[in-house]
Amino acid sequence: MPPLNLDKQVSPNRPSSLPHVVILGGGFAGLAAGKALAKYPVKITLIDKENHHLFQPLLYQVATAGLSAADIAQPLRLIFSGQSNLTTLMDEVVDFDLDASKVHLRSKTLSYDYMVIALGVTTGYFGNQQWAQFAPGLKTLDEATELRRRVLTAFERAELANDSNEASQWLTFVVVGGGPTGVELAGAIAELAQHVMAKDFRHIDSTKAEVHLIEAGPRLLSAFPKGQSSYAHKRLTKMGVRVHLNEPVKSVSADEVTLSQSAISSGTILWAAGVEGNSVANNLGQVPRDRAGRLEVNPDLKLPNFDNVFVAGDLAKMSDFKGKQVPCLAPAATQMGRHAAKQIARDLAGRQLKPFIYFDKGNMATIGRSSAVANYRKISINGYFAWVAWLGVHLVFLMGMRNRISVFLNWAWSYLAWRQGARIITKKLIGRSDGINATSSN
Amino acid sequence: MPPLNLDKQVSPNRPSSLPHVVILGGGFAGLAAGKALAKYPVKITLIDKENHHLFQPLLYQVATAGLSAADIAQPLRLIFSGQSNLTTLMDEVVDFDLDASKVHLRSKTLSYDYMVIALGVTTGYFGNQQWAQFAPGLKTLDEATELRRRVLTAFERAELANDSNEASQWLTFVVVGGGPTGVELAGAIAELAQHVMAKDFRHIDSTKAEVHLIEAGPRLLSAFPKGQSSYAHKRLTKMGVRVHLNEPVKSVSADEVTLSQSAISSGTILWAAGVEGNSVANNLGQVPRDRAGRLEVNPDLKLPNFDNVFVAGDLAKMSDFKGKQVPCLAPAATQMGRHAAKQIARDLAGRQLKPFIYFDKGNMATIGRSSAVANYRKISINGYFAWVAWLGVHLVFLMGMRNRISVFLNWAWSYLAWRQGARIITKKLIGRSDGINATSSN
Repeated sequence: MPPLNLDKQVSPNRPSSLPHVVILGGGFAGLAAGKALAKYPVKITLIDKENHHLFQPLLYQVATAGLSAADIAQPLRLIFSGQSNLTTLMDEVVDFDLDASKVHLRSKTLSYDYMVIALGVTTGYFGNQQWAQFAPGLKTLDEATELRRRVLTAFERAELANDSNEASQWLTFVVVGGGPTGVELAGAIAELAQHVMAKDFRHIDSTKAEVHLIEAGPRLLSAFPKGQSSYAHKRLTKMGVRVHLNEPVKSVSADEVTLSQSAISSGTILWAAGVEGNSVANNLGQVPRDRAGRLEVNPDLKLPNFDNVFVAGDLAKMSDFKGKQVPCLAPAATQMGRHAAKQIARDLAGRQLKPFIYFDKGNMATIGRSSAVANYRKISINGYFAWVAWLGVHLVFLMGMRNRISVFLNWAWSYLAWRQGARIITKKLIGRSDGINATSSN
Repeated sequence: MPPLNLDKQVSPNRPSSLPHVVILGGGFAGLAAGKALAKYPVKITLIDKENHHLFQPLLYQVATAGLSAADIAQPLRLIFSGQSNLTTLMDEVVDFDLDASKVHLRSKTLSYDYMVIALGVTTGYFGNQQWAQFAPGLKTLDEATELRRRVLTAFERAELANDSNEASQWLTFVVVGGGPTGVELAGAIAELAQHVMAKDFRHIDSTKAEVHLIEAGPRLLSAFPKGQSSYAHKRLTKMGVRVHLNEPVKSVSADEVTLSQSAISSGTILWAAGVEGNSVANNLGQVPRDRAGRLEVNPDLKLPNFDNVFVAGDLAKMSDFKGKQVPCLAPAATQMGRHAAKQIARDLAGRQLKPFIYFDKGNMATIGRSSAVANYRKISINGYFAWVAWLGVHLVFLMGMRNRISVFLNWAWSYLAWRQGARIITKKLIGRSDGINATSSN
């Protein structure tokens, strides 16, 4: 067969003489950078190895069977469908040549006039990468699906268990890390066991499951005011979660977490304790990094010594002019992405660059049904109203009307019916040599 | 730590003296058998290696990004939550000892007084199992997710392609098999390319994608009246699908399908051409089987020579008293499952067993937006009204109100917005040695 004629009839309105801006990563920072450049005479290429933008703040709900993957993800291509100066490529960054202003992807090499590195962070194990297999983190949709598989399968294994020791191990869940993700995961697993699954088993009593939340520091939610930490602590305890403070993890194996004085035997260990810079950024060469591999950037978000490279989002480590660390939060990433884009526009116009100033929009975390903590500047609210605010804010910032409607209905359903909409176990390994065709409908 | 006390406080009302019915498989047949025994004094154990019942008739919509996995699946445990004489186990059948009335699972061995084998069928390649890796089938949620990954990734690869031959290959899709699943897949992929994705790419024109539908026999939808076959053929051709009739596939490789006179170069080959009995059933020993490995059963659905074993659903091969083959359709499986359960109840009551009589509820298949074929006895309808009937019937028979609402809203959204709700590529291989933590947010 002759090859098809696939070229667009209408040649895209992007003469190659326009400056080329390459954005690496389609998270909150990359997305904001791409959008902020919509009206400028530049040619933009946005690279992500996934085909979607992910709304990470709701990822724990996919991991705990409340939402489906598609509810919190939006194809990048669809988001930028109407922005003709931007091309999306689903590809992976392999290496950099900053001196030649080139970035190597798996399929091709791109030259850029400006680059925004917004590759984000991944789960960090403080140098103990071997723990990852036993205690997966929660940064991508695939990891969320894996966590969901592990949590739901644990209850099934407990029901199948031939002795009570084994059942007990499968009904013990450990969440490491007392930040917002850890608090949210622990609360959601406790609710699954206490309510959603309570009537579904014959051999085990799911309400007797134990959920342990392990925090190395002296309090949960260390980024929040102290009163909110103790509110979350009290609330989780009431929901049946056992909170361990001042307990750094000594080691993790397939079925045990060892702390300083004790060990917890558990079939399901989840990691929400640390982050580290995307490892691709290690290929950037001699640039300043902190211990977690995050890139230390100039006040205007430039990578030191490179005039055409900006870093935005979680991968950028910086303190603003008041000396306050910019946190790893979606609003901060969005602000940084937009700032980097605007500096590119200023530079093209021959104007001086401005330093990035972080506008603190506050912080919120949900603990469980009808319970959350939220703060904005000096105002802190706990409980039902914080929870309603949490729901509202997350619905508003979620991308796409279809996803908003779907998430809203799933939440309403869970609230009214005490059920979770996505209690489906999917496989760890699919296709090819898995023999899936041999036994698929047993 | 001492083991938790996990036993249910209230001892379940199932003294072990009750007859034990084991049901293998939680598809339409197994589900119907379990439900039909709800009021009888038996102790039932239902085994499935998945945790969910799957509504297979809508599986092609998961494969083509219209619906999420959770929309068409329901946890078996939730379905039987209120039926106290039934225990669900998520486990896999390994072997049988029919003479001793035992079935071996991965975790334990069960003795039964009666067994209903409802293990279904898997994708069949007519002895060419090596084609499976190049042309996956569509029988499970994991296979549907894999098909979706391949279809969506093909467009991404075309956009990345460095020459037009490569792009052309990625924009050529081959569906093998002109039955309802093949027709539905081909139509849905054509609509993705023609409409849903039309504005989202910069380098390629997705509307120039080619979809080939290959059928070995002389017409599409051979189980339908001839008029409906030619309606479907005409309709698909109008949608841009190239239909090949009387073309048995000679071979399949990673990037080519060879027919008798020609070959089609394609990056995405999907298989909807045949089924074969679940391979676990090969361990049943000397029982009569057809060439596809389906079990030939007695008129009352008993496995020949075994008085306490019934076979129901797609795995059972039988002709009813009029000599008509019972088709592999959801209503037939449901009827068989219910019949097997009722015969067990009759046997327990010392009554004579009855032969199974298939009640033909007709047949329907959707072709594309606003277009379907449906028939019931002598009545055939094509086009818009058949499509509306198709939507209605599938919504009514889908399990669970939450899923009905979600599917309805997804359909409404797709219809009004010309978009698909689940255009999300998830990984083929997740966790462990995949290095997912190393590069997850690139």
